[in-house]
Amino acid sequence: MSWHVLVNGESASAVSVSDRGLLYGDGLFETLLVDGGHIALWDQHLARFGEGCRRLALPQQDAANLLQEVSTVAAGRSRCVVRVTLTRGEGGRGYAPAAAAATRIVAAFPAPEVPASAYRDGVDLRWCEMRLARQPRLAGIKHLNRLEQVLARAEWQDTALADGLLLDSSGALTCATAANVFLLREGRLLTPRLHQAGVAGTCRAWIMQATSCIERRLGVADVEQADEVFIANSIRGILPVARIESRRYHPGPATRRLMHALHQAEPTLQPAP
Amino acid sequence: MSWHVLVNGESASAVSVSDRGLLYGDGLFETLLVDGGHIALWDQHLARFGEGCRRLALPQQDAANLLQEVSTVAAGRSRCVVRVTLTRGEGGRGYAPAAAAATRIVAAFPAPEVPASAYRDGVDLRWCEMRLARQPRLAGIKHLNRLEQVLARAEWQDTALADGLLLDSSGALTCATAANVFLLREGRLLTPRLHQAGVAGTCRAWIMQATSCIERRLGVADVEQADEVFIANSIRGILPVARIESRRYHPGPATRRLMHALHQAEPTLQPAP
Repeated sequence: MSWHVLVNGESASAVSVSDRGLLYGDGLFETLLVDGGHIALWDQHLARFGEGCRRLALPQQDAANLLQEVSTVAAGRSRCVVRVTLTRGEGGRGYAPAAAAATRIVAAFPAPEVPASAYRDGVDLRWCEMRLARQPRLAGIKHLNRLEQVLARAEWQDTALADGLLLDSSGALTCATAANVFLLREGRLLTPRLHQAGVAGTCRAWIMQATSCIERRLGVADVEQADEVFIANSIRGILPVARIESRRYHPGPATRRLMHALHQAEPTLQPAP
Repeated sequence: MSWHVLVNGESASAVSVSDRGLLYGDGLFETLLVDGGHIALWDQHLARFGEGCRRLALPQQDAANLLQEVSTVAAGRSRCVVRVTLTRGEGGRGYAPAAAAATRIVAAFPAPEVPASAYRDGVDLRWCEMRLARQPRLAGIKHLNRLEQVLARAEWQDTALADGLLLDSSGALTCATAANVFLLREGRLLTPRLHQAGVAGTCRAWIMQATSCIERRLGVADVEQADEVFIANSIRGILPVARIESRRYHPGPATRRLMHALHQAEPTLQPAP
């Protein structure tokens, strides 16, 4: 069974070379985990997608239609990832946005295999050398301009590393290349503000709604002094961190409690801790 | 006669929805003016394209083959624009660059009509509200992450404005949305350094080689105090600036001399001043 793709609701596998998604990265995406027909964190995905459309002045998409298209490409799969991409379509050449119809691409891919040990024992991270640029107009949304993440991810080949942590150009902790980051310190849950850089993840949004979490400026020292560290995204859920370079952490009780709560709310996203 | 497109040397009009150019803006482009078989500023385009490949770790492209493909898509046109796009190809999902073959797209488009009055009387510009982020890893090269330019260009609809000038987040003058900017002041030619933001244009490279031009940090006050201002790019060449918001300039002798020299070197790029 080949992987199914819809472009503006029709089966297709390609987009025009004149699409502004390709020409300029002029668009947005969401990456959904679909398991047994259930989309994890659907409300959080819809909220961020809508916010991205608003910020980039892209047409708001009909939620019922999106749900239908996601279900169509995921049909017959027990578990898969569905990427929804929205571009400004074919708008002629030049940066000026034309009044063209947007291009909506909904595509299913294999879900990654996450070993049970990652959830149980935690994962290893590194610090990236790349610093993220500070751009408040693009911070928080999941837009298609991802060269910073590509360059950061190219810094290591060691498959034992689950991800790399990124600072912005001012030294503020921002996120991992494909996940948000959370610290436990003296009983408080902390996460970086994302008003200058980074993507406000949907699992992060769930955590912010589910528990008391303080957004503030954090740096390397905060990470090193943390009692527990975890990363979170929409595909793997919450992963405890066991090591960042030479600093070791014990996957602790606060992280476990949150993993348990997430498993209760979104049982397909990650196993019971 | 329809507009010709080559994808990896074969006639095509679409690319895979899994191409990393579309997924992440993971690639580069060049925009060439081709007239009567002649490519304006070819050496400068090749130099920047090569530098972009080096910086993004994309495979260097064979110049003779590129020249052949540009000539093929431009064949039969008296004057056109050819866009060369190079992406990291289909490399599976995730930010990690895979060892996939790059995708090379060479496509011809209509050349823009530039009225003779623009070269004679100068053009009007505005100041953009958008500030460019500072990212030394991406500054200077012509990569596919162009949302900042899209958002900046969306600030105005007035077709009487030729472009908008951009500052970076530190207040440093950087460029226009689709051109570089130059100031004449007390007999000296000045242009912004582009080590933190902006695209180092091919017409800019020609100017830097042809005359004495000082790269340095410049701000709004430098523009307002300039005797002459011009913008330059690979498609329209050098355009004198007549007005930036309420400040008026007279297209002056230094700008005329450089326009004359560019016309001598690249007669297809712009008319004799």
